[in-house]
Amino acid sequence: MDPKPPDLVVTTLGARVARSPLNLSTIPDDEIADFVSDDQRVLLRPELRAGDCRDASVSLEKAGPREMLHFRPEEVKAAVVTCGGLCPGLNAVIRSIVLELHHGYGVDSVLGFKFGYSGLDPATPHVPMALGLESVRSIHKTGGSLLGCARGGPKAEVMVDTLERLGINLLFTLGGDGTQKGAHAIYDEIARRGLRIGVVGVPKTIDNDVAFVDRTFGFETAVDVARVAIDGAHTEAASAPNGIGLVKLMGRDAGFVAANATLASQDVNFCLVPEVHFDLDGEYGLFAALEARLKQRGHAVVVVAEGCAKSLIQGEVERDAGGNIRYASADADIGVFLKNELVRYFKPTGLGVSLKYIDPSYMIRSGPPNAADTIFCDILGRHAVHAGMAGKTDVLIGRWYGVFTHVPLPLVTSQRKAIDPDGALWLAVSETTGQPTLSNMPVSKRAEAWHSQSHRRK
Amino acid sequence: MDPKPPDLVVTTLGARVARSPLNLSTIPDDEIADFVSDDQRVLLRPELRAGDCRDASVSLEKAGPREMLHFRPEEVKAAVVTCGGLCPGLNAVIRSIVLELHHGYGVDSVLGFKFGYSGLDPATPHVPMALGLESVRSIHKTGGSLLGCARGGPKAEVMVDTLERLGINLLFTLGGDGTQKGAHAIYDEIARRGLRIGVVGVPKTIDNDVAFVDRTFGFETAVDVARVAIDGAHTEAASAPNGIGLVKLMGRDAGFVAANATLASQDVNFCLVPEVHFDLDGEYGLFAALEARLKQRGHAVVVVAEGCAKSLIQGEVERDAGGNIRYASADADIGVFLKNELVRYFKPTGLGVSLKYIDPSYMIRSGPPNAADTIFCDILGRHAVHAGMAGKTDVLIGRWYGVFTHVPLPLVTSQRKAIDPDGALWLAVSETTGQPTLSNMPVSKRAEAWHSQSHRRK
Amino acid sequence: MDPKPPDLVVTTLGARVARSPLNLSTIPDDEIADFVSDDQRVLLRPELRAGDCRDASVSLEKAGPREMLHFRPEEVKAAVVTCGGLCPGLNAVIRSIVLELHHGYGVDSVLGFKFGYSGLDPATPHVPMALGLESVRSIHKTGGSLLGCARGGPKAEVMVDTLERLGINLLFTLGGDGTQKGAHAIYDEIARRGLRIGVVGVPKTIDNDVAFVDRTFGFETAVDVARVAIDGAHTEAASAPNGIGLVKLMGRDAGFVAANATLASQDVNFCLVPEVHFDLDGEYGLFAALEARLKQRGHAVVVVAEGCAKSLIQGEVERDAGGNIRYASADADIGVFLKNELVRYFKPTGLGVSLKYIDPSYMIRSGPPNAADTIFCDILGRHAVHAGMAGKTDVLIGRWYGVFTHVPLPLVTSQRKAIDPDGALWLAVSETTGQPTLSNMPVSKRAEAWHSQSHRRK
Amino acid sequence: MDPKPPDLVVTTLGARVARSPLNLSTIPDDEIADFVSDDQRVLLRPELRAGDCRDASVSLEKAGPREMLHFRPEEVKAAVVTCGGLCPGLNAVIRSIVLELHHGYGVDSVLGFKFGYSGLDPATPHVPMALGLESVRSIHKTGGSLLGCARGGPKAEVMVDTLERLGINLLFTLGGDGTQKGAHAIYDEIARRGLRIGVVGVPKTIDNDVAFVDRTFGFETAVDVARVAIDGAHTEAASAPNGIGLVKLMGRDAGFVAANATLASQDVNFCLVPEVHFDLDGEYGLFAALEARLKQRGHAVVVVAEGCAKSLIQGEVERDAGGNIRYASADADIGVFLKNELVRYFKPTGLGVSLKYIDPSYMIRSGPPNAADTIFCDILGRHAVHAGMAGKTDVLIGRWYGVFTHVPLPLVTSQRKAIDPDGALWLAVSETTGQPTLSNMPVSKRAEAWHSQSHRRK
Repeated sequence: MDPKPPDLVVTTLGARVARSPLNLSTIPDDEIADFVSDDQRVLLRPELRAGDCRDASVSLEKAGPREMLHFRPEEVKAAVVTCGGLCPGLNAVIRSIVLELHHGYGVDSVLGFKFGYSGLDPATPHVPMALGLESVRSIHKTGGSLLGCARGGPKAEVMVDTLERLGINLLFTLGGDGTQKGAHAIYDEIARRGLRIGVVGVPKTIDNDVAFVDRTFGFETAVDVARVAIDGAHTEAASAPNGIGLVKLMGRDAGFVAANATLASQDVNFCLVPEVHFDLDGEYGLFAALEARLKQRGHAVVVVAEGCAKSLIQGEVERDAGGNIRYASADADIGVFLKNELVRYFKPTGLGVSLKYIDPSYMIRSGPPNAADTIFCDILGRHAVHAGMAGKTDVLIGRWYGVFTHVPLPLVTSQRKAIDPDGALWLAVSETTGQPTLSNMPVSKRAEAWHSQSHRRK
Repeated sequence: MDPKPPDLVVTTLGARVARSPLNLSTIPDDEIADFVSDDQRVLLRPELRAGDCRDASVSLEKAGPREMLHFRPEEVKAAVVTCGGLCPGLNAVIRSIVLELHHGYGVDSVLGFKFGYSGLDPATPHVPMALGLESVRSIHKTGGSLLGCARGGPKAEVMVDTLERLGINLLFTLGGDGTQKGAHAIYDEIARRGLRIGVVGVPKTIDNDVAFVDRTFGFETAVDVARVAIDGAHTEAASAPNGIGLVKLMGRDAGFVAANATLASQDVNFCLVPEVHFDLDGEYGLFAALEARLKQRGHAVVVVAEGCAKSLIQGEVERDAGGNIRYASADADIGVFLKNELVRYFKPTGLGVSLKYIDPSYMIRSGPPNAADTIFCDILGRHAVHAGMAGKTDVLIGRWYGVFTHVPLPLVTSQRKAIDPDGALWLAVSETTGQPTLSNMPVSKRAEAWHSQSHRRK
Repeated sequence: MDPKPPDLVVTTLGARVARSPLNLSTIPDDEIADFVSDDQRVLLRPELRAGDCRDASVSLEKAGPREMLHFRPEEVKAAVVTCGGLCPGLNAVIRSIVLELHHGYGVDSVLGFKFGYSGLDPATPHVPMALGLESVRSIHKTGGSLLGCARGGPKAEVMVDTLERLGINLLFTLGGDGTQKGAHAIYDEIARRGLRIGVVGVPKTIDNDVAFVDRTFGFETAVDVARVAIDGAHTEAASAPNGIGLVKLMGRDAGFVAANATLASQDVNFCLVPEVHFDLDGEYGLFAALEARLKQRGHAVVVVAEGCAKSLIQGEVERDAGGNIRYASADADIGVFLKNELVRYFKPTGLGVSLKYIDPSYMIRSGPPNAADTIFCDILGRHAVHAGMAGKTDVLIGRWYGVFTHVPLPLVTSQRKAIDPDGALWLAVSETTGQPTLSNMPVSKRAEAWHSQSHRRK
Repeated sequence: MDPKPPDLVVTTLGARVARSPLNLSTIPDDEIADFVSDDQRVLLRPELRAGDCRDASVSLEKAGPREMLHFRPEEVKAAVVTCGGLCPGLNAVIRSIVLELHHGYGVDSVLGFKFGYSGLDPATPHVPMALGLESVRSIHKTGGSLLGCARGGPKAEVMVDTLERLGINLLFTLGGDGTQKGAHAIYDEIARRGLRIGVVGVPKTIDNDVAFVDRTFGFETAVDVARVAIDGAHTEAASAPNGIGLVKLMGRDAGFVAANATLASQDVNFCLVPEVHFDLDGEYGLFAALEARLKQRGHAVVVVAEGCAKSLIQGEVERDAGGNIRYASADADIGVFLKNELVRYFKPTGLGVSLKYIDPSYMIRSGPPNAADTIFCDILGRHAVHAGMAGKTDVLIGRWYGVFTHVPLPLVTSQRKAIDPDGALWLAVSETTGQPTLSNMPVSKRAEAWHSQSHRRK
């Protein structure tokens, strides 16, 4: 490694003489956070410009207004569609798309399809609505979606027929993984027909698990509100003899909401996420650890991400119109499942446990965006317009290490982002909760086990 | 530039045929946001590991727990000091330092100096307090500082005498630019005496203007609350004939709070920050633009950062104990100044302007941290402990492009971060407000003028 | 009726010529709000003083500090106990009792029993805690109870033994109906033994259903938070095709929380409370009305009070340690029951209903009190001390038409307060929701039916 | 006094043997709270019906829907006007008037005059707006007034001309004292012309000082937000050596906001209101008491109602268009005045006082109503419609001891409600703050002085 200029070198007091008492490891993928070494460093400037000698081959295109456009503003007829479940900020993104098209580019023709992709189905009774300035004026301060949301929809052929029939040449798709796969299918069909219609996605998942996107809108707001639910669970637990507060949070495949809400609250004792293996029973399992905690401190708070259902609940699972597992269905709701299992476990202990279960999911996802998300949505919406006007297509507006980017749809839908059990976020969760590994599996087998589960490989 | 792998390449619909109608430029430093070109890119991974061929010479050391420590936990006697004005999250950082020292490293001896560096002055009546687990249990949910805050303090010699007398060998300094300069002076004195005392800073400025640090704690909370103040100003303005809502926000040298609150509110028409030149009078000045807006729309919202006083208000200014200009003093408060100037300007116009002035500064800085800042403070505090235990000194815990880092104090105090008038943030503000440049200076002269002002050069 | 002085007489424009189109009645107890006549009037002063000729026989004693005390401050040893479920403001009442005893009367000996009446059981492992100034300093800003809460407890004899053993001569009991019945039993036992121990209750029920008490603490806070849950349900409903938002709220016997939250939200279409009969099925039942609403407007919001379970859910019900029906148990939760029934009803209709169910109960009851409740708790706590020091016993601190009062415990526990279906509150709910009567019973039979149900007679 | 039935009699433990240590009095009007005697009682039912033998001569007419109407719905053309400053809930009242007229009575013709009474001036450029269902749908969740607010306006003759020209026969006036005086003048002119136009007022003053009205809308919301400002001031004060937090709150003639916010915060040490005399200087004045507090505890919080300016600030005062004193003007702002006086006083003491001044007024009055105020506004608006349709005129919708009433305008504008220094509210403030009387006047002279000030006599 090259020598660093003096002013970037950190001073140390002298020799390192003691081994750290922290129970961390230096082995990757063993689900134990790793020590950091002094030669791990962060570039001062992760952005590249033409001529830079650095390896542009592993970089993403930067988003922003282009000087030359593919579309003449006067020919543009745009449309917006919001798919999937609710997420704080949907209205803010819609609004900024409409405002940027109007004020920035002079484009006044903007339609909104109702209730997700189903709104592009001529069989639906819901006709598209015109998105004028007046209709979006104050919607950024409200939850929900002006256009309505829904999962599922017709085939790409049908949707492209609708775009052609209505003369739409710029489509903005706000939604998660399934939605962007649909957007890519629409792009493919457009390409097959040789049409000049741009498709620009804005990633929407409250779970924050979109690959190559460091943050999705609504996520920070979700953590804000989830913290309030945890506060309630903590108060309930602490006010009862052997009280347990159990909170289920969103996170179908990734536990970012649960992990961050745990850090925001600082009152959680056990945080369970799909990325990190845990056992319920057994000497090192959750139940034994929870019982020990109750005996020692008299109360405990448990947070569980909904996606933990996958490994815990056996048998048939329902899938919704978008193909997602319906964890909220009677037999697959991890919160209800865990609540019942805890009652079952503690009954014979005679501890007289008082369990309070809180599921704040709909209250979280239906609220208005906080300040940070409102800002984020505004910039996402405007960058989507800049990309679309420049002729970018089959692309999604992302943010990577704080910089707004263009991410090709095939790339972004090929994988998901997940918590790295060996990384900084999970280290912070472990430090804050003080929770043990909750796994009966010997450490030596964990890295191996991790690699054997294909869904965990990023 | 190297060819990029296919899956990172963004598809475009075809040729660019129209010039963008956006009034942006391609000239750096002309205080007009720049167009982005397709070959500007963002690295997939800005972190370096040993052996990477990339230019480590322009990189920062990554923060995190080290496997080998400089201090044996049993010999550590730590102390914390909080300096300057209040900032949401101070208590959260104090708490995480204490918790990490105790739970992570088994260090139980932690003192808190009262009221900033003055608490290290033996002449002060305020004795240091012991920081035990019980004393910090719930303080992360509260505003203010358990230790009290104050500016100024005794000479470095006096402070090192105190550290020696009390046997402190690990000092955590929470504060802004002046505080970290003081911390560096303490380090120098320690080095001069050849002592084995570590000094680790945590940057605290609600203004978010610390160089080589992409975000400081309390900033996001400040924007949350500032938005509420702007909402109030907007409601007042819109409910009165020719109503003007004027809000003064923090930002002594940099307008990040004002700019971000403007984006969060979306109801601001004019956002004034120290980094971007504006005139009050003249054909293109604020007053004329505001008058035109009132005639067209009947109301307007103006946000001004306190640091705009520097260029607007002539004459003597007071300085506080820390050497900072006291903008809140009678003759140098930009909010009161602008309020009076607006009344003076509009009186002869006969518009019957109704002006409401809001200064939410103390309400903003005294509140508890929001969820995102609580998380951020927790990690900062723990990283400060990891750094200190590893023997890092004369260093500050930063975050750079989302990664926590060690930044040498001399580097971080040598300059300030400021809004780039040609960059993405100011572009977003311009798009959201729709405000013109408010400058009577011809565009052609701006880049030149910018460079002539040394304080603007980053 | 006597002539009124001119300045209290309301002017009218002239003759009444049209019958009101409002579907109200003039028949009491038919569950239809009644018209008001011009000769219904409200006294300017509902307070009586000695010598007033008015009918003091139907009045309550006014609370407040007495000039002469029964207890000499130096002999007082007080104790506080909080029973039942959580309610916003418990800590604020505890704090004001402690502060008033200390600052007002110089009484420093205050104990807090842990976890309700069980804390007076010598068999419990939880010893009483001393309630000093420092321990209560900031607790009024927090939810929960510093002392913990629990239902049930030992016999009165055991509890009085404990009071005697500890030398307590002033006991403050914070709790609902069951708690105050327990307090009266303690009083009876004290009287039987001829002891000089005062028992003063502070009514605590988030349901606001205490007789002869116009408002209980925590209730307004509950409505504040319940409104947020309803906002979420409304957003969810309005964002989905044929969306239904269903919210279950507290109200074991009385629907005050549901009714007031409905008024606070203004977005509820059907509000179901135990006091007002409704049918699910049938021509005029809820299901038919809901289906009609969906067909007309595409979405709907339903709020149901938990106590509606009593008439709707058949079979065995569980009772908790305090003898209350456990509506949250699997087979008796009205929210889950109604959710399932709605799904069952709408499946064959082919409307593709999207139902979102929110149960915010634990988030509501565990939070801190709002400003109005904090004020209310402060005054309640201080009045409890004034009453106790004056020797009042077997009494509860109430508020009646805005004036704080002393209410004998036997009176207050003899009945419950309930919504009057013919009164102003339910009229407001009907006007706001526009909901029909939802009853298949002819109007002519309702008054009769009402009187046949003993639990409804106030 | 008549014997009371046994179940209303409060049990006492026995004889009263000690005099209370509380510094209360039994003398009315000495600005010291009075002891309460056991024979002060509160009627169980303050409402009268025809035939009741009680003294109806001192009663107010109850509000509510009448069976017979003066107006046939099809002939009604209604109008709404909002005057004076902003107050949380204005939009909620407007909305409920429109909804009740439409849904309750089938009246669809509703106009809104813009910017207060000036909107009835044909010389104004602002034409009235139609108030349809769509325009008011969600406004109850927002601050400000859809119609705009302003003080002043044309003569009654001009306004009645406008009503006649537009065919308005039902006018709803939302505003404070000045507004209702204007409404009465309109009524007088209508009567003089013999027109059939009803005038119904809804009292709007955030100060809560309307006579014969126990609560005005917006007041509770104001206290909610004021508490946050006080929290900020307390945090600032406690975090600085000898910190003083000074908060100015609304209250032109009455200190209800200041007093209630003090109770809600519990962190205030000195609460200054216009109704209770206090001296700044002198042995018992504020400055000496504040200095003693700082020396003892190191920090203090002071809350002052704006109306204290009247007695403190000499010289000329400005008056606004409505005739109100403009306390916010440079030379009459009690907050700025007190801030400067405090600085002046403490400079020579050498205490190094750190003073933070917060004026949250515009943030308070511009916000949305809380849940309790939203409910209250809804009922006020509907009762205003019921009154108007029944032909009530020259009347205001009030609430008295919790019951909604009709109050004749001449009665309500003849006096103001004020804090009774001898009553329960001020007692609570004294107990909470622990503040001394702050007056150099001997107690024996206070009752006399009180009566000599005509503005204080209620």
